Amino acid sequence: MAAMKILVQKFGGTSVATLERMQKVREKVEDGLGRADKVVAVLSARAGDTDNLLALAGQWSKNPDRAECDVLASTGEQVSVALFTMLLKDGGIKARSLLACQIPVVTDDSFGRARIRSIGSEALRAFLDRYDVLVVTGFQGCTEDGRVTTLGRGGSDTSAVALAAALGSVECEIYTDVDGVYTTDPNICSAARKMDRVAYSEMLEMASMGAKVLHIRSVEFAQKYNVPVRVRSTFNDDPGTLVTQEDSSMEALLVSGIAYDRDQARVTLHDVPDVPGVAAAVFGPLSEKGVLVDMIVQNTSLDGLTDITFTISRKDLKHTLEITAEVAAKTGAAEVVHDVNVAKVSAIGVGMRNHSGVAARAFAALTQEGINILMISTSEIKITILIQEKYVELAVRILHDTFGLDWDVA
Amino acid sequence: MAAMKILVQKFGGTSVATLERMQKVREKVEDGLGRADKVVAVLSARAGDTDNLLALAGQWSKNPDRAECDVLASTGEQVSVALFTMLLKDGGIKARSLLACQIPVVTDDSFGRARIRSIGSEALRAFLDRYDVLVVTGFQGCTEDGRVTTLGRGGSDTSAVALAAALGSVECEIYTDVDGVYTTDPNICSAARKMDRVAYSEMLEMASMGAKVLHIRSVEFAQKYNVPVRVRSTFNDDPGTLVTQEDSSMEALLVSGIAYDRDQARVTLHDVPDVPGVAAAVFGPLSEKGVLVDMIVQNTSLDGLTDITFTISRKDLKHTLEITAEVAAKTGAAEVVHDVNVAKVSAIGVGMRNHSGVAARAFAALTQEGINILMISTSEIKITILIQEKYVELAVRILHDTFGLDWDVA
Repeated sequence: MAAMKILVQKFGGTSVATLERMQKVREKVEDGLGRADKVVAVLSARAGDTDNLLALAGQWSKNPDRAECDVLASTGEQVSVALFTMLLKDGGIKARSLLACQIPVVTDDSFGRARIRSIGSEALRAFLDRYDVLVVTGFQGCTEDGRVTTLGRGGSDTSAVALAAALGSVECEIYTDVDGVYTTDPNICSAARKMDRVAYSEMLEMASMGAKVLHIRSVEFAQKYNVPVRVRSTFNDDPGTLVTQEDSSMEALLVSGIAYDRDQARVTLHDVPDVPGVAAAVFGPLSEKGVLVDMIVQNTSLDGLTDITFTISRKDLKHTLEITAEVAAKTGAAEVVHDVNVAKVSAIGVGMRNHSGVAARAFAALTQEGINILMISTSEIKITILIQEKYVELAVRILHDTFGLDWDVA
Repeated sequence: MAAMKILVQKFGGTSVATLERMQKVREKVEDGLGRADKVVAVLSARAGDTDNLLALAGQWSKNPDRAECDVLASTGEQVSVALFTMLLKDGGIKARSLLACQIPVVTDDSFGRARIRSIGSEALRAFLDRYDVLVVTGFQGCTEDGRVTTLGRGGSDTSAVALAAALGSVECEIYTDVDGVYTTDPNICSAARKMDRVAYSEMLEMASMGAKVLHIRSVEFAQKYNVPVRVRSTFNDDPGTLVTQEDSSMEALLVSGIAYDRDQARVTLHDVPDVPGVAAAVFGPLSEKGVLVDMIVQNTSLDGLTDITFTISRKDLKHTLEITAEVAAKTGAAEVVHDVNVAKVSAIGVGMRNHSGVAARAFAALTQEGINILMISTSEIKITILIQEKYVELAVRILHDTFGLDWDVA
């Protein structure tokens, strides 16, 4: 007997928000059944439900118990899967809902941001013998001893990829309200082009830049277990973008996409005495207080004094300035200055790994248009440049054009 | 070591509807912890939540899958227990929520009206070793193979009594928005008196008459496992009414309470040929179509013809008249007449078991006030009389007075 072909399809909160939209989702599942023997449909809570539930927790308690927040929030997906299964059964499809704890999707006990440890894949296969479609709650799991957990925001993507990994050699389709992954944000660059394929590593860099298409942990999971992920729209028939392993066609391109992030604030400590351990004195307290530092630059020392500049998320600015003021007093720094009118743009591509000169081309292109480069950070497949926020759109378009992303590469 | 004293407390939908009310519930649980070592708090869904969820199912499907309705509806209590546990933990109480499937409360697979088969009492006791208060979802359970079920309307009372039975020799407090069980409805009889004690059998008869205080299945459960049940108010400190086994003080009273039910419609088949099997010909089709027949009277035959009269719930009238018209045609009955302006009143009391003449006293009292008696039915501890609906309030007051229920019996 040929192996059973299983397709995992994940539908986000906007796709299941209303009856009309759920009917579109039903069409996608029916289409999936035409292409595979069985479908596992992973659903998020209806758009707004999770926020409403957590707002309720905020009314009930100033510091709501995290474990009980998960019991509360997990009702959102439970409502989605029950309603959607009713629709499928009305259409004569052999379907049932499955709560994560019924499979089970076992996680650690970090309530609110749990990580998946294992999935009851044998039980899942037994269910697939009896039903054609299993409708599974995304975003949630349970501990070894059966307590309800949630995976944190965007966790439904991770649920879907993990289920696909557990079932083995299965494609995972992530349905959303966009066609796929674009070379850059089409809202600010009309030449943006939908990619047919993108490498896991590129997708990871884009996700970390705030591209909302896929949750970063789901991409890590997909890469680790080599699950092919297809990002596509619930509302049309476009084949979308396949997120997969690198291949030679991807490496032929120097740059695959341009990302940007406005959520940046820059902080500089001027004239810090340049003694051993000064960087630890600055960044240790920030790390302890949970502030995530992004880019860091330390200038060469002049007269035993140096400048230390770093960027953070804007929501952490107030907190960071308080901590940094103490650090400045202790280390004898002259002053602390900050700037919130900054943003970063990145060029990402597995192709740049084997080519030098990509950074130079980016700098030259921006400088030629009069855009001042404030900070630079590079990794193996990414160049990130901090600029003034007012230049973001312009910089994205320049880089998109410079690396020829509007060409359609066959 | 002395046995651990455990108290089960159940709080209904109106008691948990808002944050303010849940704070009252917290006071009751704290009070419970003062009287026992451990508390098991059983919660309903917040008032309106279950109706809203089932309305959603009605929008999604004309004939919603029953199993999925239970998955949907069970989120209501899940929200209640999560929110209430947050409140308890804020107050420093060692508490956690428990979903019925986490205990488990095992039921049969009659989705929407499941019956409890067993309760994981060892697991429950293990949880009680680690927590002072367990906050349990009422109204729900799960099948042997882990599917979510609900017990039907009022099922939270049954959940509470079943948990108390499983834990053994435990009192079960049912908190509601009334002080306890009254000798009759205080809204129509100002002399109505709260009872300190009432026998299970009396409570069963009252519940079957539509007294809303306790769900009938919970009383059956309490009687079967001899669980003392105390009905009391969330909003004051009255000790309420203890529902318990009969004792001699109860038997000293001829009648304990007067109940009434306006939801009655009377149907009569005139001049039915009185041949063997005619009753079956009338009531068989009604039973097959799910119509519950309440009182039945068949007159003595005259000239081989008889009248058959019975009562049903008003919502079943249209359906019943359709069925009865067919039956009349088949059996050769002369005509079918009906009357919706009827109601029944009952006198209930374990004391009447050993005394004759109770029925006669009731009939005499009603007749003296000009109330016509339409039908009569008697059981070991209940006399039920069908009258015209306009006399309901008067009849209740007359019977309440006739049997001396406004006297305070020490």
